[in-house]
Parts: sequence; C-alpha cells; structure tokens
Amino acid sequence: MKLASLKDGSRDGKLVVVNDRLTYCTEATHIAATLQAALDDWEHAAPKLQVLSESLSHEAVPMIRFHEHDALSPLPRAYQWADGSAYVNHVELVRKARGATMPDSFWTDPLMYQGGSDTFLSPRDPIRMPDPAWGIDMEGEIAVITGDVPMGVSADEARDFIRLVMLVNDVSLRGLIPGELGKGFGFFQSKPSSAFSPVAVTPDVLGDAWKGGKLHLPLHVDLNGEPFGRANGGIDMTFDFGRLIAHAAKSRALGAGTIIGSGTVSNKLNGGPGKSLADGGAGYSCIAELRMIETIEHGEAKTPFLKSGDTVRIEMQDTGGHSIFGAIEQTVETAA
Amino acid sequence: MKLASLKDGSRDGKLVVVNDRLTYCTEATHIAATLQAALDDWEHAAPKLQVLSESLSHEAVPMIRFHEHDALSPLPRAYQWADGSAYVNHVELVRKARGATMPDSFWTDPLMYQGGSDTFLSPRDPIRMPDPAWGIDMEGEIAVITGDVPMGVSADEARDFIRLVMLVNDVSLRGLIPGELGKGFGFFQSKPSSAFSPVAVTPDVLGDAWKGGKLHLPLHVDLNGEPFGRANGGIDMTFDFGRLIAHAAKSRALGAGTIIGSGTVSNKLNGGPGKSLADGGAGYSCIAELRMIETIEHGEAKTPFLKSGDTVRIEMQDTGGHSIFGAIEQTVETAA
Repeated sequence: MKLASLKDGSRDGKLVVVNDRLTYCTEATHIAATLQAALDDWEHAAPKLQVLSESLSHEAVPMIRFHEHDALSPLPRAYQWADGSAYVNHVELVRKARGATMPDSFWTDPLMYQGGSDTFLSPRDPIRMPDPAWGIDMEGEIAVITGDVPMGVSADEARDFIRLVMLVNDVSLRGLIPGELGKGFGFFQSKPSSAFSPVAVTPDVLGDAWKGGKLHLPLHVDLNGEPFGRANGGIDMTFDFGRLIAHAAKSRALGAGTIIGSGTVSNKLNGGPGKSLADGGAGYSCIAELRMIETIEHGEAKTPFLKSGDTVRIEMQDTGGHSIFGAIEQTVETAA
Repeated sequence: MKLASLKDGSRDGKLVVVNDRLTYCTEATHIAATLQAALDDWEHAAPKLQVLSESLSHEAVPMIRFHEHDALSPLPRAYQWADGSAYVNHVELVRKARGATMPDSFWTDPLMYQGGSDTFLSPRDPIRMPDPAWGIDMEGEIAVITGDVPMGVSADEARDFIRLVMLVNDVSLRGLIPGELGKGFGFFQSKPSSAFSPVAVTPDVLGDAWKGGKLHLPLHVDLNGEPFGRANGGIDMTFDFGRLIAHAAKSRALGAGTIIGSGTVSNKLNGGPGKSLADGGAGYSCIAELRMIETIEHGEAKTPFLKSGDTVRIEMQDTGGHSIFGAIEQTVETAA
C-alpha cells in the first residue's frame, strides 16, 4: 500500500491511503490520525490500512483526487533521521573532492550520521538559504521507515523491521561541510532540513525490485528539467538497509518511525568513477560527484552548486513507467 | 511551573503538573495529553497549565502523590536532541585524554552534535550495555526545551524561545568514541540513549539562578552514593543557551520540543583544571575528566569507567536545599 500525509494545517498532517497510480486517495484517520500514530501501533493499524487500500483500488470507498503538492513529507517530523553512506563510491569521490583519503574500513564498516528530524520540508517546498556561498547541493537517496527495533539486532533480522520505503533529498551545504567536519562532531549546520517523496510505500508494492534490503530501480534526478542522474539503487550499494539498521541499533533501540537513509545513490562505470548520462554513464544524484569528475578530467570543477531559481526533481518509476513515490521537486531561493 | 510525564503504558506518558516540592501532582491531560502536545500549542496551553499549577499549590485541585520513579523523561522521545559543549574546559580535558589538541576557534564557535532522540531512558532506568569495554561514562548536563525557533535567530532572541529547563545524563561510550569520531561523521554508536530528570521547569521557577541564559547552581553528581561533582552551571559556561540555540538554528528552523544540551558541566579551579571535591575542587560531572586529571598527576588514569552495579545520581537543589528537577538515578547493568 501507499501512504501519504496531507496538509491540513496541523504539524503532522492527515493520514491518507493513496492508490497505485497516485491519482486518488482516501482518508485513513479513523484508523490512525497520523502516519506516526500508525507506525506506533503498526500491528493493528497496518492490516486495516491494507484493507482500506484494497477498497480504494476497487473504488469502494470515498475518494478524493490526490495532488502531490498537497502532501507533506510522509513524516513531516520524525523522532529519528539517520543517514548512511551505503554507496561507498560516492563517499570516496566526495572525499577526493575535499582532498581527503578514504580508509579501507569504509568498505566494511558503514558510515552514518545523525540528522535533524524536527522540521522536514514538504516535497514541493523551496530550499531557502540566505547565502549561495554555502554551496547548496541536492543528494538523491532512498530511505526506509522502521518499526521498533531492538538494540543489537542483526542485519538479517533488521530487514523485517522495515515498514515503508520512500525517497529523500538530503540537502547539503558543501561550503559549510569542511569546516564543520573539521571540528570533529559531524554534520549539523551543513545539513539543513531534508524533504521526502509525497508517498511512502510498503516493500511489497515494489515487487521484484525490492530484494536483499535494496531497491533495484534507477533513481531519476533531474536538474532544471534535464536528466542529471539515473543511478540504480540496487547497484554498488555496499551496505543494504538491514545492515544500516543494525549499525544504527548497535548500542540503543530504535523507536518506531525511525528513518534510515541510504546515502547518495551512486553507480560506478566499468569499475571506475561514473560518467554523465550524455557520456553513457548513469549520471549523478548530487552535484558534488560531477564536480569531482570534472576536477579529475579538467583540473577544476565547472558545474556550480545550486543557485536561486534552480530546480531539482527526484523520482522513481516502476518498470511500467509509473511514478512509485511521487516526485520531490524543489526550487532554490537565496537572498543574494 | 513544573511538568512531568507519568508512566501510563503509552509511548509519551501522561502530562501532569507537579508542585514545587515534588510531593504531589495533578493531571493536565485536559489541557494537553502529552508534554509534546503542550509544546506544540504552548501559547494556549502554558497559561492554562500555569493556572493549574497555582491551583495545585493551593491544594484546590485533585492531587495524587508524585513519585519520581513513576516518571518518564519529560519528553520520552523528542523530534530533536542537540547537545552542545558549552563548558569548553571539559572539551579541552577530554581531548587531551584522547591525545587530541583543541583549536582556538573552539572558544568562539560552539561545538554541537546531533543526538538520537527516539528512545530516551526514564530517569530511573538502568543503563544496559552488553560490554563494559565500551567504556560507559555519565555526563551530567543541563538542558532546555525550546518552542518553534526561526532559522537565523540571534543569540539574544533565542533566549526567548526557551520553554523549559531540565537535567540530563548524556551517557557516553568512551571506548567507542575515538574510532567513531575518526570516521569523521560524529557520534552515533558511542552515544546511546540519554535519560532526563523526572521534572522539567519553566525558567521563572529558577528565580535569580536563571540569568543570561545560564543556570547558576551546582550540579550534584554522585557516584555510588558518594559526592563526585558539584560544578556550578553558571561558571565557565563559555556559550549560554541562547548562543547554543542560535548555533543550531543557523541553517534551519527548530521544531517545538527541540532539546538543547549544555554539554558536561565543568568548572576550572584558579584558572587550571578542576580538582576533586576531596581536594577542595568542584569535582567532575563525568569520569573522563577525572581520568584526565589522574593522567596529568600520576601518568595514568586510575578510576575505571562505570561497571555493572555502579549507580550514578544527578540532581540540583535550590538555595533552600530542595530538589528542583528530581533525580536521575541510573544503575549500570552489563552482561559481562
């Protein structure tokens, strides 16, 4: 089934079940007022939501048109947002771009940061920043929402706690990252509020594309209407979502509604760095990677980070060409 | 007024107003079901809670005995937990203990990490860890809960968004910190679930002790029933809470219910490192600091980190000797 949180003036929105084609939805507030409430009581709520979803598919319940721009992020605020870096290729490139090397252990021990989860943007909200010199970049990622996960869970067990799958634009401020990471306590100011896809879906919706804790479909990242990235979520993902959840739960339990991100989806090409779509590669899910490739090829980065008016669109299609999660589409607005 | 969240089998507990002496409380669920709900609608809820608090002080409403062990942390889960390191003296000592130097900028630019906020412990919960080699340590701190804070707020403005004050034991796993910080993305596994004081209070309750965004009272930290630390929250706090909130809000708004921590409370002595209480100092709010002093004086640390059966108690008294927030009291349980 597919779930969304409609804007209704409240902080957490109104839970609706959305049909497969994202054209209609039906209110689910009689089952759970909000998505967090459903996740808090998933064993009871999920079967009822599933029945409602089937009724919706038969047009047997009251329906309203579903408009993606009416949706908040599925969890407009969450108790946890932990973002991994499962596509180690991306980590290696970004660190090269910063002039930093990557320890071999990064191929065996997941990298993960604790993100801010109190003020997520809606999927169509602008990215408002005072200063373009902060180096505004998108990061197209896949994310899962978990149930209650016990401390010390194994990677295999962890996959069973995945309740929902969605997309995320993990907005990053490249200009602030080196100074902030240099202080040693990780990201804070360099990771402003993220936005998630209008719809979150249960793994069964994804069919064969969901396998081994990975989502085996291309992530469509467009910049100003042009294709920028089509990297496949199932390729070069060194750590699957089970492994990422287990990493997060090593020393504490995770609460229901925890969001775990994949990190920027990134594919190699023939064992080397990825190429742009025009050059026959899978392209990029963030600008920083392209800038690194440019630096390798031309001695300097040519593509600027996002500036006022630039629009990023992140979406994923099923094998029939239909949008699975709806689109994140954000325009940058800066004062300067 | 003083607020607490009583255990009632739910995830967020039941909001109660507690009397000044922490002996009685009265249900406040007709005003707001949970503390988060009150914070979400503070402008309406706070005046009503204040009236209820005054009625309670006159014993004019139904009362039940307040037992600290019946309380969850005031926010049993929160949308944000961001912990500063405002007592720079502590940062300097802990880094020395790790063999790391401290840049001068740490005296002017606050250090802050994004913590996990989905599964806080209750104030009397045990600290359960599988392996004592993880180096279990307490960190006695002061924390504030904010309302909605706009992005880009100044330090002066930020103080007006402080809704409540409480104490926290920011449990830290010293054995995991060097490896984790070495990866460059900050703390994750080395910061397990924290516990907060049974009661959170509005700043007006603190009277003259709340001044300039700092709490000018000694933090009582006891280890196995013996006084371990009496460092004063108002001394050597380089960055006040207004400054810490402004730091957190540089590139994004903060949601109502955001918790901002002070970092380990730590006092110097005559301009040098603090001394133990027995030696006439203010003692320590974590074991790591004492171990550093031991290393300086004797060439090696003698005091071990927490082991199974050790009990930590963190509390603060008003000038009349009465507990303000109730006590965090946690016993360590390890498998080994």
